[in-house]
Amino acid sequence: MTKTDTYFMQIAIDLSIHSVENKGGPFGAVIVKNGTVISKASNSVTLDNDPTAHAEINAIRSACSTLKTFDLSECIMYTSCEPCPMCLGAIYWARIDKLFYANDRNDAKNIGFDDSFIYEELEKQLSKRSIPTIRIMQNEAIKAFEDWKQKTNKIRY
Amino acid sequence: MTKTDTYFMQIAIDLSIHSVENKGGPFGAVIVKNGTVISKASNSVTLDNDPTAHAEINAIRSACSTLKTFDLSECIMYTSCEPCPMCLGAIYWARIDKLFYANDRNDAKNIGFDDSFIYEELEKQLSKRSIPTIRIMQNEAIKAFEDWKQKTNKIRY
Repeated sequence: MTKTDTYFMQIAIDLSIHSVENKGGPFGAVIVKNGTVISKASNSVTLDNDPTAHAEINAIRSACSTLKTFDLSECIMYTSCEPCPMCLGAIYWARIDKLFYANDRNDAKNIGFDDSFIYEELEKQLSKRSIPTIRIMQNEAIKAFEDWKQKTNKIRY
Repeated sequence: MTKTDTYFMQIAIDLSIHSVENKGGPFGAVIVKNGTVISKASNSVTLDNDPTAHAEINAIRSACSTLKTFDLSECIMYTSCEPCPMCLGAIYWARIDKLFYANDRNDAKNIGFDDSFIYEELEKQLSKRSIPTIRIMQNEAIKAFEDWKQKTNKIRY
């Protein structure tokens, strides 16, 4: 019998519930390829002193380590909550094919998380954001991009 | 003499240029607290098989490891390119105070990077995005959030 989307999402949900018991954040994520679980992770921001250690980021890093690639094409992610902008960005960079989520950004907001706020900030012009953002030295910085453009043996990602 | 913003940005730019030579992506970032460099990093996506290993994410993880905290309040980031949505999300989660950048998302687009595309995707409704995104099992998933809400000794982040 083929395992269903609810089967995999239940794993992500169980991870999120156990994470609260284990002093992590209330989030879990699972990455599946061809019907096989490649990685399972929960949020470990406070446990690891790492603000990037959301369940989805942890699951992506673990799956890439297991599969020895930075490209998770053909993979599906099941996450117990709609990804925040950081995690959604990571999902795009990892080329994940399909995404299932359960709780959403408003549910996260209701228990004190900034997902919704960060989505709003990203849509603002840089000058309107809460973090002061200043552009300097473009003339100097462009050299790395020119070097990249001219490099013949680069690995694109 | 107090070190200037251009001094720190030059470090980030030098990292981005050396990164191209060292088979990394053309990006560098520096985190500074009270005038002292806490972390320096370049993009290591292909070197580490980690799609989240952008310069800014690497710099945040390194700074948090050094300072033993998930909170980089009072820190300034200097990055050789405008952060992509993933990295900008991480900058918000890390509570960084101020951001300097040099190249921007259009410069990145011009050499083949998806920053600009991902910014556009994030602003779309979920149903309009290029990655199919499906909500299931909210009734089951909300338990972790209820548990979190009721938890009395939790570490907020």
